[in-house]
Amino acid sequence: MRVQDSRQIQVLKVTDRGSHNVADDIVVEEPLEIRANGDSLGITMRTPGDDFDLAIGLLWTEGFITSVDEIGTIAYCPDEAEPALRNVVNVGLVESARRFESTRKTWANSSCGICGKSTIASIRSHTKPVQNSMTVSRNVLAELPHRLRSNQKNFSRTGGIHGAALFDPSGNLLLIREDIGRHNAVDKTLGAALRAGLRVGDTILMVSGRLGFEIAQKAAMARVPVVASVSAPSSLAVELANEFGVTTVGFLRDRSMNIYSHPERIVHVI
Amino acid sequence: MRVQDSRQIQVLKVTDRGSHNVADDIVVEEPLEIRANGDSLGITMRTPGDDFDLAIGLLWTEGFITSVDEIGTIAYCPDEAEPALRNVVNVGLVESARRFESTRKTWANSSCGICGKSTIASIRSHTKPVQNSMTVSRNVLAELPHRLRSNQKNFSRTGGIHGAALFDPSGNLLLIREDIGRHNAVDKTLGAALRAGLRVGDTILMVSGRLGFEIAQKAAMARVPVVASVSAPSSLAVELANEFGVTTVGFLRDRSMNIYSHPERIVHVI
Repeated sequence: MRVQDSRQIQVLKVTDRGSHNVADDIVVEEPLEIRANGDSLGITMRTPGDDFDLAIGLLWTEGFITSVDEIGTIAYCPDEAEPALRNVVNVGLVESARRFESTRKTWANSSCGICGKSTIASIRSHTKPVQNSMTVSRNVLAELPHRLRSNQKNFSRTGGIHGAALFDPSGNLLLIREDIGRHNAVDKTLGAALRAGLRVGDTILMVSGRLGFEIAQKAAMARVPVVASVSAPSSLAVELANEFGVTTVGFLRDRSMNIYSHPERIVHVI
Repeated sequence: MRVQDSRQIQVLKVTDRGSHNVADDIVVEEPLEIRANGDSLGITMRTPGDDFDLAIGLLWTEGFITSVDEIGTIAYCPDEAEPALRNVVNVGLVESARRFESTRKTWANSSCGICGKSTIASIRSHTKPVQNSMTVSRNVLAELPHRLRSNQKNFSRTGGIHGAALFDPSGNLLLIREDIGRHNAVDKTLGAALRAGLRVGDTILMVSGRLGFEIAQKAAMARVPVVASVSAPSSLAVELANEFGVTTVGFLRDRSMNIYSHPERIVHVI
């Protein structure tokens, strides 16, 4: 499934020692249209590979499905103009046409309400606060940025791809996915977990990029109790995490970290 | 206009020397709905401030308008539930209902075609290759990452906000804007330029984040000849930049850089 996730091109590399043409790997970015029961849900610019995980992850984190049992078929739709292209995925949902219809309506409606106080309110209709009492030690957390980075297949080659990974409370890597889009990397990881039957209720989601609203939202929808990032969170991410019982850790670097919400899950805090 | 672009919250800061509660600044992220002539074009999660620049920039880079003369009114729409909220902007377009209608149709259509080879083809209907023969010296370029960062009002406080700036070929800062979203920072900067009557045809757009498809697309639509980034480009960004005559520079750090497209605009390359 990891076809064409990076591509070699010629670049002019310039340093104080001179300039020369070299072959360089860059991350591939291409559009993927995601459909459910034949209806288009939207297009995301993604790195090809793990497209089925991405489609399932997106359906899950946007509230269209809540369990693997609702997935019937997953297939690429043929592109008539270019048969070799695999840029449209359709997910056939089993016995869930009703939920699909009603969720879709909610989602469409929220695009008005989302600008008011209902940004977070609209998520309330999809999920409840995470109440898992899992804990993770500060020492385990401190190891995760390195484990994420060292397991990213493409980062060192391209320097430009985000990683998202699930770890157990002992710091063991369970799943990792990469994508040029931070949110896609998270959807791929969560979608892979759902498809594999991996319970994410006792895991830590570690992301390479910033911890914005959409990352916190995806964690809340998938009911992941702890999200950690090497970088900064946003105000709306912290607000959402506070309300939905998600522990958020930011600036996780060099054995330091900031805990923004639900610190009760982090133990051995000095 | 820079209300509430960061917010102070209490965080638990943990280091090897101990843990303590401190006040910390985080970037505000809130939804903004953008409307043209009352019709919703979509919602973007943005950092409040410079919202009119953002709306105009987005209308420009998505092909709805091509000049400042097409802008009639710009105003916040009152939120009935929460009058204090300023999360909906409507742009009234002058004598351009026809273009607005036809462009909108093109845009809607492209959401099918965009998954095929027409990703870039759909942009062809909106713009032609940039032919500006402006040049910029390698030494000037090398200074830009520092000038961008040192002029970012919020970065040092929050550590989590993207910057985008326009420089002239001598390296003078013309305009700078910040946002939690890379693409929003670019739209704010370009929108501010259009509103101020600043010609961007002889400028360099410097961005703090990665150089993905959407950044290259926005540069091509606004006809900015050179885009530089401290980080990596994507395959589709380079493809688009090659076709649309945009010079792309990546990994601009410590006096080194990679030139991915149209190197003829960079002079004094050793």
